[in-house]
Amino acid sequence: MNNPRPLLPGINSPEDLKGLSDEQLQQVADETRAYIIDVIGEIGGHFGANLGTCEIAVALHSLLESPRDKILWDVGHQAYPHKVLTGRREQLPTIRQYEGLAPFCSIPESEHDIMGAGHASTSISYGVGLKEAMRKGIGQDGKVVAVIGDGALTGGVAYEAMHAAGGLQTPMVILLNDNGMSISPNVGALSSYFQRARLKPGLFHAREEVEDRLTKLPLGLGKRIERLGPELKTAIKAYWAPGLLFEELDLAYMGIIDGHDVGAMRRALTEAFAADRPVVVHVHTVKGRGFAPAEEGGLAGMEKWHAAKPGSIVDGAPADSKKPKLIPVQESDAPASIAPEILEEPEPVAAPPQYTQVFSDAIVAEAERDPRVIGITAAMAGGAGLQRLADERPEQYYDVGIAEQNAVLMASGIALQGGKPVCGIYSTFLQRAYDQIVHDVCLQNLDVTFAMDRAGLVGDDGPTHHGAFDIAYFRSLPNVVAMAPRDEAMLVHMLRTAVEHDGPTAFRYPRGAAVGVDLPAEAEMLPIGSGETLQNGEKVALVGYGSGVGIALGAAGILEEEGLKPTVADARFVKPLDTEMVERLAVSHDLIVTIEEGVLQGGFGSAVIEHLEDNFANPGERARVMRIGLPDRFVTHGKPDLLHKEVGFTPEAVAAKVQAAVDSGVAPRH
Amino acid sequence: MNNPRPLLPGINSPEDLKGLSDEQLQQVADETRAYIIDVIGEIGGHFGANLGTCEIAVALHSLLESPRDKILWDVGHQAYPHKVLTGRREQLPTIRQYEGLAPFCSIPESEHDIMGAGHASTSISYGVGLKEAMRKGIGQDGKVVAVIGDGALTGGVAYEAMHAAGGLQTPMVILLNDNGMSISPNVGALSSYFQRARLKPGLFHAREEVEDRLTKLPLGLGKRIERLGPELKTAIKAYWAPGLLFEELDLAYMGIIDGHDVGAMRRALTEAFAADRPVVVHVHTVKGRGFAPAEEGGLAGMEKWHAAKPGSIVDGAPADSKKPKLIPVQESDAPASIAPEILEEPEPVAAPPQYTQVFSDAIVAEAERDPRVIGITAAMAGGAGLQRLADERPEQYYDVGIAEQNAVLMASGIALQGGKPVCGIYSTFLQRAYDQIVHDVCLQNLDVTFAMDRAGLVGDDGPTHHGAFDIAYFRSLPNVVAMAPRDEAMLVHMLRTAVEHDGPTAFRYPRGAAVGVDLPAEAEMLPIGSGETLQNGEKVALVGYGSGVGIALGAAGILEEEGLKPTVADARFVKPLDTEMVERLAVSHDLIVTIEEGVLQGGFGSAVIEHLEDNFANPGERARVMRIGLPDRFVTHGKPDLLHKEVGFTPEAVAAKVQAAVDSGVAPRH
Repeated sequence: MNNPRPLLPGINSPEDLKGLSDEQLQQVADETRAYIIDVIGEIGGHFGANLGTCEIAVALHSLLESPRDKILWDVGHQAYPHKVLTGRREQLPTIRQYEGLAPFCSIPESEHDIMGAGHASTSISYGVGLKEAMRKGIGQDGKVVAVIGDGALTGGVAYEAMHAAGGLQTPMVILLNDNGMSISPNVGALSSYFQRARLKPGLFHAREEVEDRLTKLPLGLGKRIERLGPELKTAIKAYWAPGLLFEELDLAYMGIIDGHDVGAMRRALTEAFAADRPVVVHVHTVKGRGFAPAEEGGLAGMEKWHAAKPGSIVDGAPADSKKPKLIPVQESDAPASIAPEILEEPEPVAAPPQYTQVFSDAIVAEAERDPRVIGITAAMAGGAGLQRLADERPEQYYDVGIAEQNAVLMASGIALQGGKPVCGIYSTFLQRAYDQIVHDVCLQNLDVTFAMDRAGLVGDDGPTHHGAFDIAYFRSLPNVVAMAPRDEAMLVHMLRTAVEHDGPTAFRYPRGAAVGVDLPAEAEMLPIGSGETLQNGEKVALVGYGSGVGIALGAAGILEEEGLKPTVADARFVKPLDTEMVERLAVSHDLIVTIEEGVLQGGFGSAVIEHLEDNFANPGERARVMRIGLPDRFVTHGKPDLLHKEVGFTPEAVAAKVQAAVDSGVAPRH
Repeated sequence: MNNPRPLLPGINSPEDLKGLSDEQLQQVADETRAYIIDVIGEIGGHFGANLGTCEIAVALHSLLESPRDKILWDVGHQAYPHKVLTGRREQLPTIRQYEGLAPFCSIPESEHDIMGAGHASTSISYGVGLKEAMRKGIGQDGKVVAVIGDGALTGGVAYEAMHAAGGLQTPMVILLNDNGMSISPNVGALSSYFQRARLKPGLFHAREEVEDRLTKLPLGLGKRIERLGPELKTAIKAYWAPGLLFEELDLAYMGIIDGHDVGAMRRALTEAFAADRPVVVHVHTVKGRGFAPAEEGGLAGMEKWHAAKPGSIVDGAPADSKKPKLIPVQESDAPASIAPEILEEPEPVAAPPQYTQVFSDAIVAEAERDPRVIGITAAMAGGAGLQRLADERPEQYYDVGIAEQNAVLMASGIALQGGKPVCGIYSTFLQRAYDQIVHDVCLQNLDVTFAMDRAGLVGDDGPTHHGAFDIAYFRSLPNVVAMAPRDEAMLVHMLRTAVEHDGPTAFRYPRGAAVGVDLPAEAEMLPIGSGETLQNGEKVALVGYGSGVGIALGAAGILEEEGLKPTVADARFVKPLDTEMVERLAVSHDLIVTIEEGVLQGGFGSAVIEHLEDNFANPGERARVMRIGLPDRFVTHGKPDLLHKEVGFTPEAVAAKVQAAVDSGVAPRH
């Protein structure tokens, strides 16, 4: 086949796709894929999912008038082709970088990004809302399509939304992007449901079409079936269409369609958009499509290439074909990935381990020690550090899919039976289970542990993934013990403390490398509510919480060079607070500086000033409190170092603030 | 029929049911029902749902060994018969009363109350956790059954749990108590699904049984079907069994069984428990069963008698048969009721209206003024004050069922299209949508309004229903404007403010009667972040938020009698805080007292001290802050007056605290 003239360079908006033939559109999809392989192979980023959605993006944008018509990408990490086709081709090399393109869809970034989403399962609800508003004459009318993966469909809110769409008969299309990758085979009933559906790839009919075919069956079978009556016919239709689950929710169903055949999808979608009702268009795609090492490597290959490390692909092939470099787990915080994330290969000897890795080993040790310890993850076995437990002690492990609510409630049930469940869930994703934390774990006072990875600013994945609110919300809840380790040794102790403490516990730790201290030979249970003074000094006490302790130590070092030797303490617990330590520091210093990687409103620093305000009749008799933490705004994406600088969460920034306060004579106690 | 000897007085534990015949068990169920009618008719309480579950409770307890076997009641307000049968018969007259039986199941109350739940849809997850723990040898082995209503099945977490049960093939029974009442006919696809299922009441088979019958069809039909091959047979089975939705999730299905026939249920349940897999047993019950005015009054009758007002039933008949007295909407805060709650009939002229009623009228006015205003409720049209909107402007209204997550996301979609969605959801139930509030509304900065009824202590429904955390969690989120009205006039203004402000807004108001001020002729938009000084005084400034303002005014009156005239202010906004007002009060008073009906950790009072600590270099130069609010524990159930006294949230308690602080010479500014 001779090389046709490249078309992609001429596609600067969806308008440029109009009038192209199916063949030309297919070519655009191929070129989009090749471009993504080139760019992401070089700079790193989400990879496999985006190779699977090139034809979907081309088909949708060739048929629809975006942004009047609304294309909703459930979890935007499948939306790179969409970005390429909507005027952002040349910026793709900046994706996930500070001030570059956002990792997911972003409303401020483009009029074509209708919704923003880094958490899964939301797109159908948005679609129902948009279309229902249109039906009421609000805004401009248009077509609505939600593109959602089979993994995202395990989230309960997606079901709530299908239920609503079916009940309201909202005219919209739900494009189910089924790549069979999104959930591990054992995760749930939906998985085997789709497995069965995939056995019938030749089907491409709404139920009505099946009916039509039935009566035309050869050998007189059709006539015979007709004589058996309409109910029987309906039954046969039902069986032959793999969309029962959807049709039972009053959603029409079309499938299964080849998601890499632009023409086939365009025909199906045209029909679906013409139907004045909710239609599920079920397409089958291959994650990693068009990239041989992913596509040909089977399940393992696809998992490996969920995301690519910078420089890992050159000229469309792995840079090191023997050992493809993979991005560390922290680089791929994508909720709908669900492809178990790949942990980074061990760094040279001296480098400290990742916090995730330390947790991973520690929970295996706890599980070995106590068979009642059960690890639970919500589709993030790798990212949340539960893969080793899954591999070595599968009988003490559950992956419930993208279903954080169910994860926490299952843990509640396990706790009621005397088990010791540990929910390993990112801070940001645990938000989905807030009500279960309040109403089930804390109110019922159950022995459930929350191990929150990715607490604080996570970096490239940006504001949808930062863990900013958990300190504040856990602290507001009765019965819970909430803590954060300053280093990997303390993480090991805190897991033990959480497992041994009889009641709700939560601890949080950041993304990335730990501090590099020796791990303890034996985990110890910490006295509940005990802080620790790390260094005695004068005038100023720097009190860190979790990753804030490292900042405190760093700032203290800088200040010491300036001639000020601050006290440094590790709060360890935000609830219950070590009030004895706080009071002691307050009466022996002029200034207490609290340092936490979470929002300031209601956070750790607030706990300190609440206690001091409550307990010092004369505010003049205690140190003033300066709070350092995350600002009252959503922080953008980019490398953590850059983000930490932007928000002033660095030793240098803290030292400067303290120095300024001291220089201005702040808080002389008398 | 002659009256048999009463059996119920001899049932003091489930053990006493063992060995009784089906007929005797049926008699126990009848007597339980009569007893509940008597007691609840006299004292008031949840009514209809409990009349529907008498036979279910008897059948389960006669078959199982509770508490070794686990009976999980989804939302415990259907569990009165269970309480009667498990040794709490004589305490039933104390239910929902302070220090009496809990309104829902309560773990501390009885070993037979395996889980506690006032929020819907959690029981299946608990069941999966319990049974999975048993399978791992944790605790004592036993059977597990979750009793869940059709309304609760609209909650996404129930679907997540069925998905898990199917995937894990957890051997447990899901007893679907389908009374056809729980969702309004228009709520969703599930509703019509069950409608269709109910058309086939004669069915009582697992799919296997259908297969068996198929081959035995008369007129040679069976043989003919066999010749068509196994696939066809499966198809026909599938159609005839109404459990497709469940079977698609790999849950076995049995139904539909008469939920008022103890014997039929015992047979079905015996089979279901014997199956070594998850089985849905679908039973049909009648809400209000056995109470003629409810049962014979059709849908309206059942809705009316969802809950009974004290003294409304005498000798098994309405006390006033012409006009049955109904409890005010605030008495029936039951999430799974979903039966639209009935608003209390107008009180004598002088009485102030209910806050819910004021909101109800105000949102209709807003909707009339602006067609973009869309009210959204999650199965609580009556309770949340959206019934009038539903009746008068159905085109500006949605009820999504028990699906708060979807409610908030649909609102997000509507906002993206330029609509002005108002989510009317109780404070406690909105917790289900915390992640959507963070990740969708606030992060995307969408124009969604949250109108939170039942903020603060709600009373009889107890800790699962108190709205204690919303001040703290909304305040921690960027972009949102959060406020609370001190009276019904301010509620009208705040709704207008929320609708007109372009961005996320939330306001909260308590259960019960408003203050009694005149309603404004015209709603006004308040300046965002503006408080209001209501009374100028000296030394002490009482600053209320929402219902705290009434406490502040009351306390000021008491203090004035003691010769101290405090300043009284209404913060109105907790975010953004009126920092100018706070600073002014801080420099002109010795003591600021913040008063809010929410937890103290991170709440409104914390906002005040955070600001003062940040902005006064010398803490000695500003007033000390004393915070009044809800304690750091879950508060029990009982009349709001009693609960408010218990936690010190009364004018008297506040006045006494202030007086004590003043007497002890607290907080002299210099």
